[in-house]
Amino acid sequence: MHLARFTDLALRAVVLLGARSEGPRLTVDDVAQAVHAPRHHVAKAVHRLGQLGVLETVRGRAGGLELAAGAGATTVGWLVRELEGTGELVDCDQPPCPFRGDCRLRRALRAAQNAFLAALDAVTISDLIAGTSVPLQLAPPPPR
Amino acid sequence: MHLARFTDLALRAVVLLGARSEGPRLTVDDVAQAVHAPRHHVAKAVHRLGQLGVLETVRGRAGGLELAAGAGATTVGWLVRELEGTGELVDCDQPPCPFRGDCRLRRALRAAQNAFLAALDAVTISDLIAGTSVPLQLAPPPPR
Repeated sequence: MHLARFTDLALRAVVLLGARSEGPRLTVDDVAQAVHAPRHHVAKAVHRLGQLGVLETVRGRAGGLELAAGAGATTVGWLVRELEGTGELVDCDQPPCPFRGDCRLRRALRAAQNAFLAALDAVTISDLIAGTSVPLQLAPPPPR
Repeated sequence: MHLARFTDLALRAVVLLGARSEGPRLTVDDVAQAVHAPRHHVAKAVHRLGQLGVLETVRGRAGGLELAAGAGATTVGWLVRELEGTGELVDCDQPPCPFRGDCRLRRALRAAQNAFLAALDAVTISDLIAGTSVPLQLAPPPPR
């Protein structure tokens, strides 16, 4: 069971930007280097987070990315639903399954997925970033 | 969020074999045709289910696959853990994450994964296969 890489990168970017609320703003390049992911993957995730109102891009000399005002109250459950979608855990049409019309497995997996998301509904972005400033010092310095 | 295709195929095979407890035993070829998946993928899943004691292979002219005696009491949660593993939803080492030492996101995802599996612990194989005989008639006939 895995989250999509896109969701994973977006969540890492949120934690990173939340932990760096002090000091110079990070850029997409900084985030990509810190999480060791290709720049264009990170740029896509950052773009989506901007659309969702979680991140803002500040332009200008001291510009960069920052968590949007109020983003801390956003729940991780909501964010994962938006990033990942709420599609089914298995695709009953690919390959087509003879039971797809009325399948108890499908219902059981849907209920389990709801339990998964409900657990993340209890966690906010603020919860994620509280106290994460020290481990960040382990990251390589961003490029200048 | 997806289950591995291997887990998906194994669960479909279990439902299929459970629903066909009456009538001639199904073979790996029958299962592969019914779930529209490559034979070698289904064979691997069936082999693993045999190792887990969920399926048995009956040899001989009227041979084939069948659910093992007592397999109905097996929970889907146990089966998914065995098939899928209980690895993390995101791989904190690939790409390496600066927060992996002490990450609240990691803990939140682990708790959500446990909630997912706990929901499936409440469902047994017997629960899955109860009343699924009718939809199976929609499947193409197995090859003879």
